[in-house]
Amino acid sequence: MSVIYPRRQRQLQSLVKKLGLSAQAPLKWELLDLALTHPSISESANYEQLEFVGDAVVRLVAALVLWENFHDARVGDFAAIRSVLVSDRILAQLAGSYGLELYLLVAGSAYGDKAGQESRLADAFEAVLGALYLSTNSLELIRPWLDPHFKQLAAEISLDPARQNYKAALQEWTQGKYKTLPEYRVTQLTPPTHNQERFVAEVWLHGRKLGEGKGRSIKAAEQAAAKVAFLAIEPPQ
Amino acid sequence: MSVIYPRRQRQLQSLVKKLGLSAQAPLKWELLDLALTHPSISESANYEQLEFVGDAVVRLVAALVLWENFHDARVGDFAAIRSVLVSDRILAQLAGSYGLELYLLVAGSAYGDKAGQESRLADAFEAVLGALYLSTNSLELIRPWLDPHFKQLAAEISLDPARQNYKAALQEWTQGKYKTLPEYRVTQLTPPTHNQERFVAEVWLHGRKLGEGKGRSIKAAEQAAAKVAFLAIEPPQ
Repeated sequence: MSVIYPRRQRQLQSLVKKLGLSAQAPLKWELLDLALTHPSISESANYEQLEFVGDAVVRLVAALVLWENFHDARVGDFAAIRSVLVSDRILAQLAGSYGLELYLLVAGSAYGDKAGQESRLADAFEAVLGALYLSTNSLELIRPWLDPHFKQLAAEISLDPARQNYKAALQEWTQGKYKTLPEYRVTQLTPPTHNQERFVAEVWLHGRKLGEGKGRSIKAAEQAAAKVAFLAIEPPQ
Repeated sequence: MSVIYPRRQRQLQSLVKKLGLSAQAPLKWELLDLALTHPSISESANYEQLEFVGDAVVRLVAALVLWENFHDARVGDFAAIRSVLVSDRILAQLAGSYGLELYLLVAGSAYGDKAGQESRLADAFEAVLGALYLSTNSLELIRPWLDPHFKQLAAEISLDPARQNYKAALQEWTQGKYKTLPEYRVTQLTPPTHNQERFVAEVWLHGRKLGEGKGRSIKAAEQAAAKVAFLAIEPPQ
């Protein structure tokens, strides 16, 4: 196990305090240190394996919060809500609310990579969850502070399960129901039309076209197609 | 909570014994009963929500087994191995080894649906894991009997992480690395060629073609394309 220098130890203690955990919590500090070490610092001693564990931890916490608080929701809604809860966007947002970027060790060019910041924060957040889980082999250092966030977010998301991300919602639905992914076929219109919606996407499942949409980018066209498909399977209530 | 009839209670006790759990284990029997009730029996009181919880539980157990026993593996291998461990095929196989089909209540046409048996068993298996987790809010009723299976399977799979399922392996890799899915574009050759490999699939990621393959079915062509792509990113060792 690596040595943690006093300055780093104080940093980590400050984060733990922000999470509302006691200074006497049975924490494996060397794991927390690792969780906040980006691969640009070390190829082998970084947060990647902890992130892998934390990815499963965060899915479990999300599932438990839904099970305990949204018992009447349909399983399709569970899946759609969870896909938002565990998205990079939400995890990075939570990480930001605890100032995780202040504790994350990043080196060199990765440091200046602002575009990658969201996924970096989300990854490190998952890794921190992995470190906390492995400290006690339980969720006891996690649920007390993460549950309230997830409960509130889930309540908001449940009003609009797709939360504008129809591709993710549709994918959760097809994965859950058919264990398969929808397929997107994108065509670029030539010459570009005047309003610049120059991509046309179709979304297919098992040889059947579920929807079609246009957009200024491939992503936008796919989202438009996914929205048509998703709303057809989950009519607005 | 529903009443469990004595005959059903004896059935469930016999299953719990097979899992090696003590008859005094702090089990929520009504959840175990629900975990073994197919949606064809009841639209609302069935295993679907427990399966949703169990899906996260099984991913966590797989991650923990990999963390504890395969510490030197690369994260890409972790992802590929886990995708096999939590696949319907493996989960149905484990379910079968405990004779889960004997305990699963199924009604009507679903009963005769042999083709759906694998996913039904895998789903019920996940639901049982969900029920066991929720009984103690921990993995203590699960890891003692599931860990040895996963350890042995992971050791086998680590010799061939893609395990012939290159689409799943490639998807795990692109999800882990780029948070996105590869896209398949399939064309049907007309007229069909003599050897009947009449589908050509291309696999794309971020506007770049990763591989191409042919097959007698769309699925086979996609697997062939995924194999080319996966072996290019993960050279055989």
